[in-house]
Amino acid sequence: MLGNTDKRAIRSYGDVYGTHRAVEPRGALPQPAWRLDNDFTRIFRGEVLLTVEALNLDAASFLQMEREGDPAAIVLRTVAERGKQHNPVTGSGGMLLGRVVQIDPRGRPAGEALAVGDRVATLVSLSLTPLRVDRVRAVRPASAQMDVDGEAVLFASGACAKLPTDLSERLALAVLDVAGAAPQVARRVRPGTAVVVLGAGGKSGVLCVAEARRCGGPGACVVGVESSARAADELDALGLCDAVVAADARDALAVRAAVLAATGGREADATFSCVNVPDAELAAILVTRDRGAVYFFAMPTRFTAAALGAEGVGKDVDLFVGNGYAHGHADHTLALVRSMPAVRALFEKRYG
Amino acid sequence: MLGNTDKRAIRSYGDVYGTHRAVEPRGALPQPAWRLDNDFTRIFRGEVLLTVEALNLDAASFLQMEREGDPAAIVLRTVAERGKQHNPVTGSGGMLLGRVVQIDPRGRPAGEALAVGDRVATLVSLSLTPLRVDRVRAVRPASAQMDVDGEAVLFASGACAKLPTDLSERLALAVLDVAGAAPQVARRVRPGTAVVVLGAGGKSGVLCVAEARRCGGPGACVVGVESSARAADELDALGLCDAVVAADARDALAVRAAVLAATGGREADATFSCVNVPDAELAAILVTRDRGAVYFFAMPTRFTAAALGAEGVGKDVDLFVGNGYAHGHADHTLALVRSMPAVRALFEKRYG
Repeated sequence: MLGNTDKRAIRSYGDVYGTHRAVEPRGALPQPAWRLDNDFTRIFRGEVLLTVEALNLDAASFLQMEREGDPAAIVLRTVAERGKQHNPVTGSGGMLLGRVVQIDPRGRPAGEALAVGDRVATLVSLSLTPLRVDRVRAVRPASAQMDVDGEAVLFASGACAKLPTDLSERLALAVLDVAGAAPQVARRVRPGTAVVVLGAGGKSGVLCVAEARRCGGPGACVVGVESSARAADELDALGLCDAVVAADARDALAVRAAVLAATGGREADATFSCVNVPDAELAAILVTRDRGAVYFFAMPTRFTAAALGAEGVGKDVDLFVGNGYAHGHADHTLALVRSMPAVRALFEKRYG
Repeated sequence: MLGNTDKRAIRSYGDVYGTHRAVEPRGALPQPAWRLDNDFTRIFRGEVLLTVEALNLDAASFLQMEREGDPAAIVLRTVAERGKQHNPVTGSGGMLLGRVVQIDPRGRPAGEALAVGDRVATLVSLSLTPLRVDRVRAVRPASAQMDVDGEAVLFASGACAKLPTDLSERLALAVLDVAGAAPQVARRVRPGTAVVVLGAGGKSGVLCVAEARRCGGPGACVVGVESSARAADELDALGLCDAVVAADARDALAVRAAVLAATGGREADATFSCVNVPDAELAAILVTRDRGAVYFFAMPTRFTAAALGAEGVGKDVDLFVGNGYAHGHADHTLALVRSMPAVRALFEKRYG
């Protein structure tokens, strides 16, 4: 094996999406592919080689592995079999923390400020990231993280973020994990907009609320819906919501009644669903006004439940799949947290 | 049992969504509910009582029942058990054809022109429509239809369409089944817009192409992608596309290459996916320009594949769940078919 900092040969070909690393089936896109080439003795056009320090798994994947057995052993097996940490049961990945070893600049984004030695977090899923894990050094169940020794590459289309020096690493990782939500809120909310956030006390929910207030100012109406009493209290204490409603987002009619009671009967212009359980589609649809917008950031959202749910109740709203990527989303969301001391303090307490 | 045209007592309560008919669990919304009250000896506030003549099942549901056994017997069993034709395996419903027996106008949409005796098709799924089936008179596998004797009710929020007299019933049903797509195209396409339609030779695909040309005129660039040679030929013969590309939408890279070859390298401003197979999410994302829009009308679309797929390739596009309902969608789509003789002729040949 090459040492961590040894230069690797660079092949002159390779595409921005990483199809050159797909082994099974050959030439596929790396996420749907079963197995990726994780031989890093050479890299390809546009790739960034990273040493890997930690894997930040998604909570659902970690829980599944705990139920199945020893998460460390299962990760080693998955990565050996697939060349990536793509949980075959949940279908999900996570992100990783590492340091840049080598960069081939051809085809990479213009203006990218990335240098050898930078500590970075990847912003694309581990389910499409070629990875080799040599050893698991520690498992941290509370944060679904593992410290590992290994290597990985990022393709030219794969976003990553330099870790900021003014925030703790754990806080930065927690924020970057949900960086896609706030930029979408910023595109939609203006003074006067009525906003409802479902799952508003969770990580992405709080960021949506904060961004809605930042963009909408005192003239926006921001209602947070949260089922956990503790999270609802913490959200309320931020002073960002016009009302915090305690309701279970799976009970669409109760949510609608509670929201309308809080707003004096006004439906939302834009609703953001950050609920981490299934069956919350109808609540988001029912609190939104005719021709309003519903953004689903929650991964348990079911496509058919959203499409047929709106049809079933005759609601002409725009339904959005929350895109995990937006231009500048990492910097945008880190800046949001820096600009809101109360949000930053809450996140440091929870995730720092 | 009451005769078909006997007046039923009307209860003074009932909500627009039909929660008053949910028996298991009580008070739920009717789609997620396991069982609905299909006792039509009385109706509730805002309901329309229909005699049912035919069930128009979705193709996936019909196929599942054929594999399991006798579709007629299975429908009778499902409706007896659940009070609605909600296939417990596929989770899907269909629509029905019937005649209005009685209307309670309280809470119904303003300006609704619906009268006793009208022949109508329901535009909300059978998976949320209280239904009683007394007898199956005929099964027509080719069109996934059953002629039945029975009754049903529509809630105040449930859309239906009067069957037009100038189109054959089968053609009207086929068009109404996918009425939601064209109005969304009309909201998005203008002269100059570059449009890609995936699955463009199918029913909703052809309607998307037709609407894109109607709204975009000769100045729009409309590319249809279709994997079936026969459907591609039929689409091409309509003369509505700037280019018809033969490609399998599951091969995202091949689709992207073929579309860019046809447009001289221009990506789509708006892409509409009407592909009736899974794993077509990435093709739609990859052919769309930065900050463009992708509408998924295809029911096999997976939420996570769309959200994580765009993130994985770093594409900042707006991803839409195709809402099956839009204001005036039935009239809109019927008018589109009437205004395009070639489309009408093709649909009469296929579905009439």
